[in-house]
Order: sequence, then structure tokens, then C-alpha cells
Amino acid sequence: MIMNIKLQKDVLKDQNVAATYNRNLFHQHKTLVINLMSSPGAGKTTLLEQTVKALKDELQIAVIEGDLATERDAERLRALGVKTVQINTVGGCHLDARMIAKKLPLFELDEIDILFIENIGNLVCPSGYDLGQHYKVVILSTPEGNDKIPKYPVMFRRTDITVINKVDLLPYVTFDLDEARKDLETINPEAQLKAVSAQTGEGLEDWITWIKDVYKTCSENR
Amino acid sequence: MIMNIKLQKDVLKDQNVAATYNRNLFHQHKTLVINLMSSPGAGKTTLLEQTVKALKDELQIAVIEGDLATERDAERLRALGVKTVQINTVGGCHLDARMIAKKLPLFELDEIDILFIENIGNLVCPSGYDLGQHYKVVILSTPEGNDKIPKYPVMFRRTDITVINKVDLLPYVTFDLDEARKDLETINPEAQLKAVSAQTGEGLEDWITWIKDVYKTCSENR
Repeated sequence: MIMNIKLQKDVLKDQNVAATYNRNLFHQHKTLVINLMSSPGAGKTTLLEQTVKALKDELQIAVIEGDLATERDAERLRALGVKTVQINTVGGCHLDARMIAKKLPLFELDEIDILFIENIGNLVCPSGYDLGQHYKVVILSTPEGNDKIPKYPVMFRRTDITVINKVDLLPYVTFDLDEARKDLETINPEAQLKAVSAQTGEGLEDWITWIKDVYKTCSENR
Repeated sequence: MIMNIKLQKDVLKDQNVAATYNRNLFHQHKTLVINLMSSPGAGKTTLLEQTVKALKDELQIAVIEGDLATERDAERLRALGVKTVQINTVGGCHLDARMIAKKLPLFELDEIDILFIENIGNLVCPSGYDLGQHYKVVILSTPEGNDKIPKYPVMFRRTDITVINKVDLLPYVTFDLDEARKDLETINPEAQLKAVSAQTGEGLEDWITWIKDVYKTCSENR
């Protein structure tokens, strides 16, 4: 049993208290936590499937799936043999730290190296909620257009990594990768940009290397 | 001057009061109002550009553009000679009826046949806010995947028309139009589905005919 029931009740009163609580728990159990955010259909689940396939032989992975409805995405991850817990928010437009805190007793955190949290598909609301994660990643897919970076600046300002997904569609859509780079640098000079296709595998090596590197750094620092 | 200042103040206290106020104003001035919603990058502005081009010789069109930041979309519409007012919500994830009510004095509603409101790119929050519009339209683009209909049921349940956009990308993405039709029928049997490409013009006739028909019906009933 990981959690203390009394503590859990207190924690659930407040989003910020819950975020700190989650963060401490992740630190204590040496679990790296990555919060994946994007518009609906940008490819979070497909990127996650590819990431799990690339990492699961050397690291223990677990997933929390956020969706308004259905267990479809959770089933896709479970099919890869990964412990996955679904959160259905019904009408809710984002995950918050209390929802995550409530689900943590379902995991054996001590045995989990990396926990991915797939947020609700929404380029606005999730950016405002600290889940206690180590890294926030936003995925922007090429068919959405590169104007999304200046048009949704809050999300891109608050995330550590921007993954440009669906680069295999570049010949068929209007997306300027150089302009995206430039806009991101203006809005968030600290952010890293990675261009991938979760469908074809293009560019995934760079993304996987980044995860392994931050996992290594995090586990050394704990 | 369309609005009474005192009334405006009262109206702005409450979202539902503002929606009713807007609705009455649209009715009184014989303006058909269509609220366009979608994920970021599904093609609302491009569809709107094509719609304006097809209708502007016979009908007076105006636009309210909702975005977190920038006037980019408003400028695209203004370039077509259409009166366009931008609302920047900064961090706000949807438009509400009060924001619309505040902007209505900027229009000569008597001279406007159709007012399009382009909502914030967000498949969750805008669905819960009545702006006083006659019709709610949701645009789903093929790269997002047809699983968005069951996964974001609230939006699809509350909209009159679902426009499937970017059908020109069907050969390159995983999207099943028949399954989308079936899912929509389950969630909202009253909804109509229109498949288009705002980029190539495919299927736009059906969309334009629908607008002309509802404009005719609305203007006859007023």
C-alpha cells in the first residue's frame, strides 16, 4: 500500500497540494513522469505506442490515459503489455493533479521507471495544470498548421519539448518547419523541438534518446 | 446605436441571459448566426474563407473570430472584404455569450444576413456555451482520426452539423468515413454529416447549399 488514506483526503482538497504530493511520491519512488499534451488527433497515443515498443525491453513503463469517454486508448497500450489506467473525465477538458493522485495507489511505483500521462486532447486547458510531472511535452501535428504556435502561445510557453508529429504528411499539407522553429524560439527559447512521424518511425530515435537521457539524469539525481 | 447601455450591463452579468439577449437581437435584425467549432487546425478559417467567397456576392457576411492570441485569422477574412471582429481570450478556452454581446455594437446587424462566429480551437469547452446562435457546426478533419466522435461525444451530441474536412488527405491518413457516419448516428441521430475539402473545394457545394437553405428558412420565419 503506497498511500496513507488520511493524507490522501487532505491532498485531494487542493490541486497545488496534490501536485506537490504527486511530485514527492514520484521522487521517492524514482519514477520519471512525462505529461503528454496536444490537440485531439495529433498522435499522442500513436507516439506513446512507438515509445513503449522502443523502451519496454529495458525500462518498466506505465501509462495513465486521460479521455472524456471510452477506454480505446488504454486498450491500445494494454495490448503492448503495459499497465495502463484510464481516467474518463466525462465533460472535463483537462487532467488535474487530484485525478492523478487518486489513481497512483493502483500502481506499484517502486517497480515503474517511467510513467507517461496522456492528457485530454486540448491545446488550451491542460497547460494550466501541474500534475507533478518532471517534463511537459506538447505534440503538434503538421496538418494543424505551424500557426498554432503563435495562436496557442500559453501551451508552447509552458512545455519543455515540442514534438512536431506527422512529418510524413509534409508533402500534402501547409506546414513550415523552419517557421515553427522560429516561432517556438520566440515564445519559449528554452524549449526543444523534435520532428517525427509516429506512423513511419521517422525521427523517433532523437525522441527516444531524449527520454533515455532524462531518465538517466533523473535516476542519478535521486 | 444598436444596444442600450443599461441593458448591456445587466446582460453581461450572466452567460445565459447574454445568450438570450444575443438570440433576440439576431432575430430582431434578421441575422442568421452560425457557431463554428473544432480542434485547433481542423480548418475552420479555410472553410470560412471558401464560404465567404461562395456567398459574398449574394449575401452580406460578417465574422467574429475567436483566438487566444493574434489577429491572423481576422486578417485572412478581412482580406476578402468581410467585416471581421477579433476576440482574443488570452488564456480562455471558449467564447461565451457575454463576449459576443460586447462585440455586437460594432456591427450594423440590420445590414448583415449571416454572422459566422469562429470559436476557439477546442473540441471540449466551446460545446458547453450557447452564444445565441441558430446553428452549431463542428468541423472534424481526417488527420484527427474518426475515433474523435466517440471520444469527444459531448461536442458531437450538441451540434447540428458535422463537417468532415480535409477529405483530400484520405489516401494518406487513417480515417474511416463510414465508421464516422455510424458513430455520429449513434451519438446524435439528428445531426447531418458533410464531407468536404476546404483546400480543394471538394464537397463544398453541399455545405453552401445547406447554408443558403437555412438562411432562406430563417429569413422566411422571421
